[in-house]
Amino acid sequence: MDVKQLGAFTAFADDKLKKHGVFATERFFLDVYCLKPGQVQKPHVHAGCDKVYVVLEGRCRFRVGEDSGEHGEGAAVLAPAGIEHGVENTSSQNARLLVLMTPPPPHA
Amino acid sequence: MDVKQLGAFTAFADDKLKKHGVFATERFFLDVYCLKPGQVQKPHVHAGCDKVYVVLEGRCRFRVGEDSGEHGEGAAVLAPAGIEHGVENTSSQNARLLVLMTPPPPHA
Repeated sequence: MDVKQLGAFTAFADDKLKKHGVFATERFFLDVYCLKPGQVQKPHVHAGCDKVYVVLEGRCRFRVGEDSGEHGEGAAVLAPAGIEHGVENTSSQNARLLVLMTPPPPHA
Repeated sequence: MDVKQLGAFTAFADDKLKKHGVFATERFFLDVYCLKPGQVQKPHVHAGCDKVYVVLEGRCRFRVGEDSGEHGEGAAVLAPAGIEHGVENTSSQNARLLVLMTPPPPHA
């Protein structure tokens, strides 16, 4: 059985947000993103892929389309296909996100 | 922005596990399952859909194919397409799971 402990993905990087692969199939991938304060995933678009961010730890500012807002632990944010989205750790604490993408983008 | 607080899905049912819809698109759905002690999702198969269970709270026994095991908070369990899988709350405490299915099954 393929089981992963999300609490084990805790490595951060100094230069940019750190992505950890949890699961990946032809239908989706699930990652954990670790963002130090100030680290960012710049707004971008996936034409045919939905994304969900779930805040595991800390607090980040999310942008989806024209909207943006800060959300903390336990928040789930939907970034539908074709809508520009991004995230920034605007807090003073480390943040960890569970990130779903389905289907995986062609370039992944 | 479509944001849901996973901590808000806390209703349980006496007769069977309670499913709460979080997000649903043509590409996936994300639910929260609330299982009282002894409640179960019987083993079943989705031919072309992957499922992931993430334990939000409590502890459950998962079965995927021939394997089974108990996993607690923060565990992510992959049930790949075509593999029989199920879950049972074998503990004495309530359990809450985040459940991803992608793509959504035709009958959902």
